[in-house]
Amino acid sequence: MEKVGFIGLGIMGKPMAINLLKAGFEVTILNSSQAAEEVGKQGARIAETRSRLASESDIVITMLPDSPEVEAVFSGGDNVLDSLKPGSLFIDMSTIAPAVSRKIYDMAKAKGVEALDAPVSGGQVGAEAASLSIMAGGTQEAFDRALPLFKAMGKNIVLIGGPGAGQTTKACNQLIVGVTIEAVAEAFRLAEKSGVDLARMREALLGGFAQSRILDLHGQRIIDKNFRPGFKTRLHKKDMGIVLDSGDELGLSLLAAKLVAGQMEKVLEAGDGDLDHSSLFLYV
Amino acid sequence: MEKVGFIGLGIMGKPMAINLLKAGFEVTILNSSQAAEEVGKQGARIAETRSRLASESDIVITMLPDSPEVEAVFSGGDNVLDSLKPGSLFIDMSTIAPAVSRKIYDMAKAKGVEALDAPVSGGQVGAEAASLSIMAGGTQEAFDRALPLFKAMGKNIVLIGGPGAGQTTKACNQLIVGVTIEAVAEAFRLAEKSGVDLARMREALLGGFAQSRILDLHGQRIIDKNFRPGFKTRLHKKDMGIVLDSGDELGLSLLAAKLVAGQMEKVLEAGDGDLDHSSLFLYV
Repeated sequence: MEKVGFIGLGIMGKPMAINLLKAGFEVTILNSSQAAEEVGKQGARIAETRSRLASESDIVITMLPDSPEVEAVFSGGDNVLDSLKPGSLFIDMSTIAPAVSRKIYDMAKAKGVEALDAPVSGGQVGAEAASLSIMAGGTQEAFDRALPLFKAMGKNIVLIGGPGAGQTTKACNQLIVGVTIEAVAEAFRLAEKSGVDLARMREALLGGFAQSRILDLHGQRIIDKNFRPGFKTRLHKKDMGIVLDSGDELGLSLLAAKLVAGQMEKVLEAGDGDLDHSSLFLYV
Repeated sequence: MEKVGFIGLGIMGKPMAINLLKAGFEVTILNSSQAAEEVGKQGARIAETRSRLASESDIVITMLPDSPEVEAVFSGGDNVLDSLKPGSLFIDMSTIAPAVSRKIYDMAKAKGVEALDAPVSGGQVGAEAASLSIMAGGTQEAFDRALPLFKAMGKNIVLIGGPGAGQTTKACNQLIVGVTIEAVAEAFRLAEKSGVDLARMREALLGGFAQSRILDLHGQRIIDKNFRPGFKTRLHKKDMGIVLDSGDELGLSLLAAKLVAGQMEKVLEAGDGDLDHSSLFLYV
């Protein structure tokens, strides 16, 4: 069984690393956080540096906040790339810019290292339940090699296309989810101000063309006035930045995505960035 | 069994009237269109004027293009209201402004006539298959009285609330559907320009939080480049006008709805108003 190095033990990464351990993988982590202690107790080995972790691993996984952190770990000071052996595999499961994923793929390839972008959706609940959706970009061979690891962490696992295709799909996911939340929020505000019973309306609309998981789950959140995360607005705002940057590179204006990013900025400016992204309702 | 007058034998109204005849209702129509001949062959009685139709009916249904047409039929020249007997029921199944529905309710009530707003969704296919979703506003008594007729025309039948609540719910439906189409259109354009396989992306996203009937059906339309209606963009644009007017009355700006109405206007200006509303994709 291949040896796995795992970097990034946050809300998502910690349960993902634990699920790899539970599936029987030998996992090495960095000694850099409280979470490391907890994952260490589940049987993970500890490495003192990133280069040490990389040199002892066949596959290195990163689960980090954003593009700069992934680039720093991959090719910055004390990096992973310089210590990975040819033939090894680098899998970034963070949500970052597709362009950065393609750059990492090229840098890895030049050293004989395979790379996959494999962002996830499903949140903390999905990470803990090993039911994440995983959208991968890269070669079929690299995907096949990663599949046993992915199966230990997720359920709906798809190779979308070449390098960056996983990140592009994740960006599209975040675009659709964000704009659909705005749609539901505006409709529920219009209904509420009109004196219409929101629960009956949600029920009626779920039976027709307006049906969506957002209408189902976030419609209920709006009815319950429950904006505990869930997925924090400030994280979704970061992802909308990736969407808009990707659009800019391709000459697309993506008007609704831009509008919703602006609405999320309002939520952040009001100090509500740690509320669930369904809190867009509060700013309609 | 109550005698029904039916006014408005368009793409939707014609099959709805026929379904009432098939269910055994005695239906009277106006002698005003080619469609009247066809519905007449199915057994409908013909009245020469609206007032004659109304005086011979216990329940009058209208299925017309927009608010002005409904107001004209209800209370304009040769109108329905003046000839309806006290205790009869007026049901408007058109998609019109909630404020107009409330006005009609009040005028009807002053004459001892009950009124329901009961807009539908499901399109021509739903009208022909008697599987329309029907969203009603009015009193429980009027709804109970209308239910046998509704069951002859639809499946998902809900009394949402008081007068106008059906129209408000329909407006919210059209808002969500329109904005969700824009969301899917922008995502698919971003993916396409990035060189991502749209069919694989659709499949992956349908398994997660971005799932919607719009992603399912209109995502497939975009992949197939099939923009035959379906539901014409110019009709959806008219409905977005109702959404925005209702928002204005309540002091709501409904930014995403406004943006999508503007995108639909672009489609119309380009002469594509008769394409399916998924043709928003062509203007991203």
